[in-house]
Amino acid sequence: MSDSLFTANNVWMLVATVLVFIMHLGFAALESGFVQKKNVVNILFKNTMIISIGLLTYCLVGFNLMYPGVNEGGFFGFAGFGLSNPEGAAGLIEYADGGYTYWTDFIFQAMFAATAATIVSGAVAERIKLGSFLIFTTLFVAISYPITGMWKWGAGWLDAMGFYDFAGSTLVHSVGGWGALAAIILLGARKGKYTADGIKPIPGHSMPLAAVGVFLLWFGWYGFNGGSVLSADPGLVSLVFVTTTLAAAAGAVGAFIASYGLFKSHDLSMVLNGVLGGLVGITAGADLMTPTDAIIIGFIAGIIIPFSVVMFDRLKLDDPVGATSVHLVCGIWGTLAVGIFGSSAGGGQLVTQLIGILAIGAFTFIFAFALMYLLKATIGIRVSEEEEIQGLDIAEHDMHAYEIPFEGAVDFSLQK
Amino acid sequence: MSDSLFTANNVWMLVATVLVFIMHLGFAALESGFVQKKNVVNILFKNTMIISIGLLTYCLVGFNLMYPGVNEGGFFGFAGFGLSNPEGAAGLIEYADGGYTYWTDFIFQAMFAATAATIVSGAVAERIKLGSFLIFTTLFVAISYPITGMWKWGAGWLDAMGFYDFAGSTLVHSVGGWGALAAIILLGARKGKYTADGIKPIPGHSMPLAAVGVFLLWFGWYGFNGGSVLSADPGLVSLVFVTTTLAAAAGAVGAFIASYGLFKSHDLSMVLNGVLGGLVGITAGADLMTPTDAIIIGFIAGIIIPFSVVMFDRLKLDDPVGATSVHLVCGIWGTLAVGIFGSSAGGGQLVTQLIGILAIGAFTFIFAFALMYLLKATIGIRVSEEEEIQGLDIAEHDMHAYEIPFEGAVDFSLQK
Amino acid sequence: MSDSLFTANNVWMLVATVLVFIMHLGFAALESGFVQKKNVVNILFKNTMIISIGLLTYCLVGFNLMYPGVNEGGFFGFAGFGLSNPEGAAGLIEYADGGYTYWTDFIFQAMFAATAATIVSGAVAERIKLGSFLIFTTLFVAISYPITGMWKWGAGWLDAMGFYDFAGSTLVHSVGGWGALAAIILLGARKGKYTADGIKPIPGHSMPLAAVGVFLLWFGWYGFNGGSVLSADPGLVSLVFVTTTLAAAAGAVGAFIASYGLFKSHDLSMVLNGVLGGLVGITAGADLMTPTDAIIIGFIAGIIIPFSVVMFDRLKLDDPVGATSVHLVCGIWGTLAVGIFGSSAGGGQLVTQLIGILAIGAFTFIFAFALMYLLKATIGIRVSEEEEIQGLDIAEHDMHAYEIPFEGAVDFSLQK
Repeated sequence: MSDSLFTANNVWMLVATVLVFIMHLGFAALESGFVQKKNVVNILFKNTMIISIGLLTYCLVGFNLMYPGVNEGGFFGFAGFGLSNPEGAAGLIEYADGGYTYWTDFIFQAMFAATAATIVSGAVAERIKLGSFLIFTTLFVAISYPITGMWKWGAGWLDAMGFYDFAGSTLVHSVGGWGALAAIILLGARKGKYTADGIKPIPGHSMPLAAVGVFLLWFGWYGFNGGSVLSADPGLVSLVFVTTTLAAAAGAVGAFIASYGLFKSHDLSMVLNGVLGGLVGITAGADLMTPTDAIIIGFIAGIIIPFSVVMFDRLKLDDPVGATSVHLVCGIWGTLAVGIFGSSAGGGQLVTQLIGILAIGAFTFIFAFALMYLLKATIGIRVSEEEEIQGLDIAEHDMHAYEIPFEGAVDFSLQK
Repeated sequence: MSDSLFTANNVWMLVATVLVFIMHLGFAALESGFVQKKNVVNILFKNTMIISIGLLTYCLVGFNLMYPGVNEGGFFGFAGFGLSNPEGAAGLIEYADGGYTYWTDFIFQAMFAATAATIVSGAVAERIKLGSFLIFTTLFVAISYPITGMWKWGAGWLDAMGFYDFAGSTLVHSVGGWGALAAIILLGARKGKYTADGIKPIPGHSMPLAAVGVFLLWFGWYGFNGGSVLSADPGLVSLVFVTTTLAAAAGAVGAFIASYGLFKSHDLSMVLNGVLGGLVGITAGADLMTPTDAIIIGFIAGIIIPFSVVMFDRLKLDDPVGATSVHLVCGIWGTLAVGIFGSSAGGGQLVTQLIGILAIGAFTFIFAFALMYLLKATIGIRVSEEEEIQGLDIAEHDMHAYEIPFEGAVDFSLQK
Repeated sequence: MSDSLFTANNVWMLVATVLVFIMHLGFAALESGFVQKKNVVNILFKNTMIISIGLLTYCLVGFNLMYPGVNEGGFFGFAGFGLSNPEGAAGLIEYADGGYTYWTDFIFQAMFAATAATIVSGAVAERIKLGSFLIFTTLFVAISYPITGMWKWGAGWLDAMGFYDFAGSTLVHSVGGWGALAAIILLGARKGKYTADGIKPIPGHSMPLAAVGVFLLWFGWYGFNGGSVLSADPGLVSLVFVTTTLAAAAGAVGAFIASYGLFKSHDLSMVLNGVLGGLVGITAGADLMTPTDAIIIGFIAGIIIPFSVVMFDRLKLDDPVGATSVHLVCGIWGTLAVGIFGSSAGGGQLVTQLIGILAIGAFTFIFAFALMYLLKATIGIRVSEEEEIQGLDIAEHDMHAYEIPFEGAVDFSLQK
């Protein structure tokens, strides 16, 4: 490959890295918008720490667990602690499809890794102990995510079998979703959510913050999917842009129609989650689909959202931000869609997709459940009832997210 | 062209696409910041749906209306429904100035298209019916915008005539502005705005949100103008960056001075709109101007803003976010400026620019007025007085944008 | 160099420019989040004007002061007012390490320049007069920043001596920090901050806004550091991405641990400033460090943050956003770290780094102190006690940042 093509590829992969990075702000904004005012500092603190710890542990162990470079077709491999750079600061590793440096490879994958843990963060919001959460996510992103990731992207047994997951509907999104599901089963619902009088909505404290989050996630998804081409290949990256865009748009429309049908109202949170559902849905096959396929996949994902939210509520599985519906349910849908649509479709492919979904789901759910169970049995995972009522911002951080107006302040009449 | 140059061009066009995408968050933030707290969910809902519907309709009809590939020098053409891809998933179409794929061409143009409709959204805020608005914008972006866009960018009659509009001061911004003007004439002002006691300001509910919006729009404008080079040509793209930047900065300074002169106060909303005015102003000739030209064009645009806002208020045309001043008035100014400054300047050019402004303005205004009139005569375009007082968030969406503190809540003293 | 490599380099430098631009939104959001609700419009106004004025003055004088192209090894040079373009609109200037156009060179450097002034903005918040602030920052960014910048990046005497500052821990961040220090010494603390009863915290009004700001700054830092490679060199840019990322993450962890040790609470503002401290710390040597070096440098920067904040408070130097701790103290740390870590480390290097820190610090502090002193002696720099209590939003701008609920409003019960 020529120097200039290598450089163009590497520039694109670094731009994609930056775009995936900003998804972490998207998650932080979305989740803090969807929780109550008294738990906002807690969410922001958790999400700042998750990405930081996640990046460091991925450097320490995750990257070499996910890409062991040995054990092709295997279940597990580990290339040792820390990063190595085979050819010094300017070392280049060329890949079949394009080319970028060792450092680019690491940093792009590291940005991906932390997203799986962040998905959990929203689902367990407003009631989990900070310490237990940080221990959980550290181990989840350092060990569980890279092991199942290796099965496909590290040339492991699912890859050998023909399982297809372009940018991670299963490897990233449903993994985060399974972790979230295990956690909320053990954690239980927020107080006052499921009462004798029925299911009580607990509205989020700031819709603008939630909307900012969703638009930033959509924005970052161009790097998430577009970077998963692993080169700047003009035809593939631009096709991925088109399918990603159309699926997100169709997801909004699907959720709009389905939620109007179900609730007879124009529900902003459903439409926002519809966008995300469409994005998660297209992720597994964004490089395979035609525009029409992409619209259908996104539209169905959008329709799934309100039904899935209602289903989890009926099961009394309390998820303040809808992370399980968006990432788990639409992640499964998107992975199956590869066996239904796309040039690789076929009966055999659908079975392979199902095997991948179940294998990764089983491993992740068991890992997350066992870890959370252990934490529950030892240091505890849930704050006290008093702390939950008071809010985690005061209980865990001794601060408020917003300025509190108080009677008697000199400028009360102006400031309130 | 070499593979590597083609790849670099295509990377730049895709980055520009991503930047134009985030302008939609800019519009959503700006508009929701400038409306009252009771109408915030409505704005966010509308802007999420506009971009989604706009992208889908552009895929279905808009792109092939705007770039029919036939009827050169004509008024109308249509290449059929849906997208086609002449050379498969990796199909490449090389253009004279650079080169990028068919998919890149579509997705960059699709991001542009929805902006025209979004401009209308702010002007009609706080009183329009959701359903009528969505029908209006769907048809506006699917039919009206591409037809006038074809006149210039689709090699139509205005292009043949020598009309110059580099990135859309007229084709995008004034088109959105004309749509907004037609809509607010038919819609009428918000209750309580123009009273017997004079014009009553209705302040926006969140200046930080509005400022976030303006900075994101400025950010995205580097893709809007920089991508309109249609290649990564180093000299042209970097010149466009310089002229765009200086015009925005000069717009802020112009609005600062003019609004201080007019109102004797340091008005944040005027300065923010001054930035946008400068950006709209430079858009028609961003590739032609010297730095000095750009500063003058932006500075004048900034000065125009407060005068235009006062003018529309005197005409009792109520525009909560100043969209008509920013996009219509400064769009006209920027298009004329191409005939005054720049290497292509000359008396003949000024007349041609005027013809383009008037032709596109007349078509768009008539289309928008007729459509809105029809909606008004049938399903109605304005919410009831009661709904307007209550706010559209409750009336149309049955939810609040922010957490409501209420007496008797266990944690009221902490949460308020 | 081939056309396609030149194009790829130029694309990367323009993307980096856009990323540095959005840091200004990061600063605006961070600073407005950390101030009281009554001073938010003022911060947004100042930050919108700083970048605008800064870009224009950098075009007028700053760029040609910083890169005079003469006086190699000297203290001062000036290439004349305004921009010149040696080879017309498409003029290309190739540099040793890569290549990009004259316009790219200017616009990337212009985005950097305004950051130094923005750093001051946060430290002096909530009590400085708007007019004095704008005069101060205009002269600071037009004259002081480019002169010291020239000493290193303009091939001046510090460059000749071997001083190393890759992306500006000293040239940008500590320069902003010294300006801030001079200003807050002369300005005095906010009323009620240091009382007979001890130091009273004045909490910021919106933690989500502050968090949005920090994530956007981290995002933009990939352009700040990555663009400072001055080409798209794959090995160097990707290494810079890795070191920048790991230092930011380690900064969060360092601040988490140190602030828990000091205050026994999980302090969000410390963790956010820890991220920024890590980023400032790595900036001087981001292209020299191994991943392990980067983690150590960032971790120490994170630990520094809470101690530095306590120290400034004990000295009764009131800095509402912690800008002096982040930019000055961690800027010094990062510059020294180049003499301790990295391939260029050595006893001699450490002394050279110290000389650079002291020389630039002395010039900047004296310039800023003298200018602020002059303003204090003439037009005054501090608002009246009454205005400070009332808030600068009303005193200087006659508007509120947020909608004010008021008794008797028809929709009070819904809107509050």
